[in-house]
Amino acid sequence: MAEELEIDPKTELVRALDAADGSALLAAAGDVHYADLASLYENLDDEQRDRLLKTIGPEMATDVIAELPDTLIEEALNHFKPAQLRVLLGNLSDDDRVDVFQVVSEEAQVRFFSLLGPRDKELTRSLLKYEEDTAGGRMTTRIGRITADMTVKQAITVLRRDREDTETLARIFVVDEEGRLVGKIRLRDLAFSTWDTPIRDIMEEADEFILATADQEEAARTLSKYDLIVLPVVDEFHHLLGVLTYDDALEILQEESTEDIEKLAAIGGDQSEVTYLNTSVGVQYRRRVTWLIGLAFVSIASGYVMFRFSEILSQAFVLSLFLPMVVAAGGNSGGQAATMVIRAMALGEISTGNALRIAWKEARTGLFLGLSLGLAIAAFITLVLPQLQNGTGGPFDFPHLAFAVAASITVQVLSATVLGALLPICARAIKLDPAVVSAPSLASTVDVSGMLIYFTTAGAILNLR
Amino acid sequence: MAEELEIDPKTELVRALDAADGSALLAAAGDVHYADLASLYENLDDEQRDRLLKTIGPEMATDVIAELPDTLIEEALNHFKPAQLRVLLGNLSDDDRVDVFQVVSEEAQVRFFSLLGPRDKELTRSLLKYEEDTAGGRMTTRIGRITADMTVKQAITVLRRDREDTETLARIFVVDEEGRLVGKIRLRDLAFSTWDTPIRDIMEEADEFILATADQEEAARTLSKYDLIVLPVVDEFHHLLGVLTYDDALEILQEESTEDIEKLAAIGGDQSEVTYLNTSVGVQYRRRVTWLIGLAFVSIASGYVMFRFSEILSQAFVLSLFLPMVVAAGGNSGGQAATMVIRAMALGEISTGNALRIAWKEARTGLFLGLSLGLAIAAFITLVLPQLQNGTGGPFDFPHLAFAVAASITVQVLSATVLGALLPICARAIKLDPAVVSAPSLASTVDVSGMLIYFTTAGAILNLR
Repeated sequence: MAEELEIDPKTELVRALDAADGSALLAAAGDVHYADLASLYENLDDEQRDRLLKTIGPEMATDVIAELPDTLIEEALNHFKPAQLRVLLGNLSDDDRVDVFQVVSEEAQVRFFSLLGPRDKELTRSLLKYEEDTAGGRMTTRIGRITADMTVKQAITVLRRDREDTETLARIFVVDEEGRLVGKIRLRDLAFSTWDTPIRDIMEEADEFILATADQEEAARTLSKYDLIVLPVVDEFHHLLGVLTYDDALEILQEESTEDIEKLAAIGGDQSEVTYLNTSVGVQYRRRVTWLIGLAFVSIASGYVMFRFSEILSQAFVLSLFLPMVVAAGGNSGGQAATMVIRAMALGEISTGNALRIAWKEARTGLFLGLSLGLAIAAFITLVLPQLQNGTGGPFDFPHLAFAVAASITVQVLSATVLGALLPICARAIKLDPAVVSAPSLASTVDVSGMLIYFTTAGAILNLR
Repeated sequence: MAEELEIDPKTELVRALDAADGSALLAAAGDVHYADLASLYENLDDEQRDRLLKTIGPEMATDVIAELPDTLIEEALNHFKPAQLRVLLGNLSDDDRVDVFQVVSEEAQVRFFSLLGPRDKELTRSLLKYEEDTAGGRMTTRIGRITADMTVKQAITVLRRDREDTETLARIFVVDEEGRLVGKIRLRDLAFSTWDTPIRDIMEEADEFILATADQEEAARTLSKYDLIVLPVVDEFHHLLGVLTYDDALEILQEESTEDIEKLAAIGGDQSEVTYLNTSVGVQYRRRVTWLIGLAFVSIASGYVMFRFSEILSQAFVLSLFLPMVVAAGGNSGGQAATMVIRAMALGEISTGNALRIAWKEARTGLFLGLSLGLAIAAFITLVLPQLQNGTGGPFDFPHLAFAVAASITVQVLSATVLGALLPICARAIKLDPAVVSAPSLASTVDVSGMLIYFTTAGAILNLR
């Protein structure tokens, strides 16, 4: 609290770790939140990690390991002996346990599975059938669950008995005798009602739910849209399977936003959970090299167009002044359009069906953007360039040049904008990831089209070749 | 529920709206979640909006208006008469009310303020002193708040009395007689404890809190990191001012991720709350045109370098084949590095202080990336290009050319990678937004450096000019 003047427990923990002072280490670790312990763990060397985990033991390590990035989990678990692992794996909440099984190697999967109790074995097996990135793959099955014909008193008795087994009591779900979701109730309504009230009278309808097979991002956005603390997860027969909680949703949204941003920058792989400073140069290299080489070879196409039209360039060197501008304007305007559309698709706003409406909207936006850019450049060429003539090597027909550059930049921006908007939609229509496909295909097409548009339009207007 | 075969209330609502059927409209609106009503509202024309709001009245409209994007709020409120507005503004939760005051015009601010009751006036004024994007600007002050010396029974009595006024009872905070935060307690601990237990005995320490002046994204990430439902917001004397709830955090993270992505694509402005299809062409145009024209003029610098070196190009036309590749490789590798660093900074992983460590890491990554790319291109030039010789217009000294291109691409990728990593750090050091500054400054610098590196390196190796 404010008046205490203690040493920060994190500082103390690092000191105790370096001094190999076991009892101080255990005491300090008890004062540090498990999320902070997990962040600290990432920055330790192997010997320190071993000392920390062995000192705090499997009980305290459970929460820490659940917070670690995927790539560190197997290594962390291997610091424990089988008997300790049995305790640790049993302590994990069922959704965290499934996460562990989804990220470790096959060899470890078999080894860890043999350490589970019979009930956990069955539960883990049944949860593992859902993909890691679906609502079913992220849900927890530890939930408060009562039936509609109970009284408040019976419900409280049941919930109190199962207390250790329920991850959240913020919302309690009501099922019928078949286990189908029929309603929900808040703990506060139980606490503030008389004991003989039937649950049926105080429960609300559970209108918001999600199928176990739905995408995790859809589940997170549903929970967020309706301001829910927990979102019930059901199968196709409306049986209540589990819930997704708000903290799962927060985690999913953070993961997906990092993933989206990295895809737009043509970075591959699935390492986004590890912090930047803890990723090795080798991993950084592997995540980036493929796209980089791919994109480089694609740009040979632009080079080929430039090579083919070199004659035109050599007839009017001044054209090279605006070549990078025309090409870059296409990349920038196409990238803006693609970003708007990819983002809107990710938020579920637009679908393949309204592609025409989007294309029409982007065509108008692109036309205005292209015209503005063309006018700005034309003004620059006619008004500013003559003043700088000395630097550019001789007299040109400036109005003529202005028209040639302005016309090609308008065509380039208009076409790049429409293309940028349509590429993600086409990618989705053929079931490819819009964010992954759009950046490289846009870069290549727009660069080539920029070269072609510039040389043919400007060449024709200036009567070259 | 599953067995009912009703018409979807949303479909029914749209029908009733078109038919101007008031009672059917009211009934249908009652069956639709307010979040869905807000989404529907965005797609209505002005007449339909007026009909919908007037039919559902100020009570039901309160929740809908709180969910609307910022830009639609003032217009929506203007559909109501002052007497209705008084009800509506009084019904809003205090954090939503502050949001309304933050987004409407000054004229409306004064008009709406005069409609508030004295208590709401004072509260709104005190909350308005926090910036919109800080923890204080997003917090709610409706919280369960008890003192440590109460018994469970006294606490329940207080909480039950204030029930209508507390946004969440999931976590209840304990303050001392000065109003300073001293602990927290869960409703379930109250419900499951005997009535004469002192709160002091069952409360936990409230170790996680945030200053009212902290950035909203930091607050959201703190809540998420520690898996909290509510995060207490305090002033510098540790007085409990309010709480940030998990649904605020979900909203903040969604807003910030959209903002980050748009900044990386050089899209300006603050319209991210309105859906793509509901943004007019004019707004789209304004958000994109400034950066587009700015970036275009910046690329005149690249054009100037190309123009200056046109002689070298005309001596060896074949160089144009690889010019776009060298330039693009810099843009791509620099963009990847900048994205990794901006993302890591947004997640609070890295600071200006460890700039050198990051530069060293990126230098190694960039060197390996550049060498790989150089080797790939060199192999292509020596092995594949001779086969295509007919298409490229004559015999070249392929090994010589391969060395020239590979050397320049390695230098370009290495320098662009280091630059891409350092630019966001420098931007932050001089208090600029890294995401906004990095994309354009990177594009311009790397394009120019690519031209320069290519012409000087390749020109020297091939003995041109």
